[in-house]
Amino acid sequence: MSFMTKLHRAWDRNNSLVCVGLDPDLDKLPECVRHEPKPIFAFNRALIDATRDLVCCYKPQIAYYAAFGAEDELAMTIDYLSQTCPDIPVILDAKRGDIGSTAAMYAREAFVRYGADAVTVNPYMGTDNLKSFLDYSERGVVILCRTSNPSSAELQELVAGDRQIYQYVAEYAATRWNYNHNVMLVVGATFPEELGRIRQQCPEIPFLVPGIGAQGGDVAKVLENGQTADGKGLVINSSRGIIYAGKGPDFAAAARRAATALRDEINRHRREATR
Amino acid sequence: MSFMTKLHRAWDRNNSLVCVGLDPDLDKLPECVRHEPKPIFAFNRALIDATRDLVCCYKPQIAYYAAFGAEDELAMTIDYLSQTCPDIPVILDAKRGDIGSTAAMYAREAFVRYGADAVTVNPYMGTDNLKSFLDYSERGVVILCRTSNPSSAELQELVAGDRQIYQYVAEYAATRWNYNHNVMLVVGATFPEELGRIRQQCPEIPFLVPGIGAQGGDVAKVLENGQTADGKGLVINSSRGIIYAGKGPDFAAAARRAATALRDEINRHRREATR
Repeated sequence: MSFMTKLHRAWDRNNSLVCVGLDPDLDKLPECVRHEPKPIFAFNRALIDATRDLVCCYKPQIAYYAAFGAEDELAMTIDYLSQTCPDIPVILDAKRGDIGSTAAMYAREAFVRYGADAVTVNPYMGTDNLKSFLDYSERGVVILCRTSNPSSAELQELVAGDRQIYQYVAEYAATRWNYNHNVMLVVGATFPEELGRIRQQCPEIPFLVPGIGAQGGDVAKVLENGQTADGKGLVINSSRGIIYAGKGPDFAAAARRAATALRDEINRHRREATR
Repeated sequence: MSFMTKLHRAWDRNNSLVCVGLDPDLDKLPECVRHEPKPIFAFNRALIDATRDLVCCYKPQIAYYAAFGAEDELAMTIDYLSQTCPDIPVILDAKRGDIGSTAAMYAREAFVRYGADAVTVNPYMGTDNLKSFLDYSERGVVILCRTSNPSSAELQELVAGDRQIYQYVAEYAATRWNYNHNVMLVVGATFPEELGRIRQQCPEIPFLVPGIGAQGGDVAKVLENGQTADGKGLVINSSRGIIYAGKGPDFAAAARRAATALRDEINRHRREATR
């Protein structure tokens, strides 16, 4: 099943726009999993078991695994997801990008080695960098557009002609890159006006939205500016706010409460049609 | 020893601006190393032994290892370099970039896990993404500026005010990001005029120059436009042109010949002072 089909079904089945970011910092894991032989995987498995009826996506961030040489635990996590919740898509957050021959290797890493349903990529190098990913027509390609961090403005908000740089990314996404209908855009919750502008440029493309919680983004404004006509179109990520909601042996139950609260808060702001 | 000191000494000791890109595609390795227990490492070791008196840097591209789950062979390669030629810096080509907390994990991957002297990074997310790398004051941070691929123009050549986007990257590099004197820029050989413009903006910053050989860049124009006043300032990469110069059991000797020829061709175009 293609990434986009999976995503649409997961939105509907779980009535949720929540994505859980699986960013397990080895130095911050709860005491009760630290002594497991595979502590990162044990942590993730408990989080997945506690939240899989509440979310539309999982998003492991590869840096947290690569920093500690834990590629095996990333693979175990994605395998566990494909076994226990095959209907929930997995976005590998890797922000890859390179010239064609190398990009093909990065695409192979994400889609073949790990079997992720989608991967995040950086648009700075342009189309011939993205093509290696886009040509996997059944997989999703999640392109950075307007990122959530404060200094993202340094390049992304420069004005060329009548538009800012991130708006060119949105335009290319709509007109040039979506030939397999497998494009998503990363748009930070911290810039709700920009979110609205990009939604006007790309009425149908789903957005991956980081930046609520620790980074300060406002859920109501994200929904107001970013949801599609059918009350969907958003994959709203929370990492720290869910996975570190509790630090004791009940961390998974705390994660469940946090994910439920976020799902419900988001749903309160969705269009009538879907509530 | 800091990355920059290492680089300056390697330029001088080997009288070379050549960087060998260690991009070992498992499907293209010479028959004679394919049946080794660690074929990628065996290939790299032979290339290193054959070229280490001819180069100023080695640059493994992590995608070629990650696609095949060969992180161990990347680590073995960098360890082997640090043992056999500790004076030649290693640039890990990874083009990483993310928000601060995640960027810190990527920096840890490159500098702590693998012990690379430098890493390539993507500037699209701005300063707070780069800072996690730049704060490793003894390590190099090689920032994409004007990349060698054809579609790099889509974003990098957009004009904002009086300058193109890649020129903002060059300006930030010179004025904002080089507070530890550990910045390099990636500037493709395929755009020699841009190379000259960036050299004017950044008279001292070393450039990593991909794009000669298979991509069509011209060595004479790269030197004319890119070298610093002392006839250095360039790290000119060749991957396929050197590592696949031969395909038989003599592949390492063929690589040595190709690296020698490239070093000599480059040196013919360097300023008198250094010949």
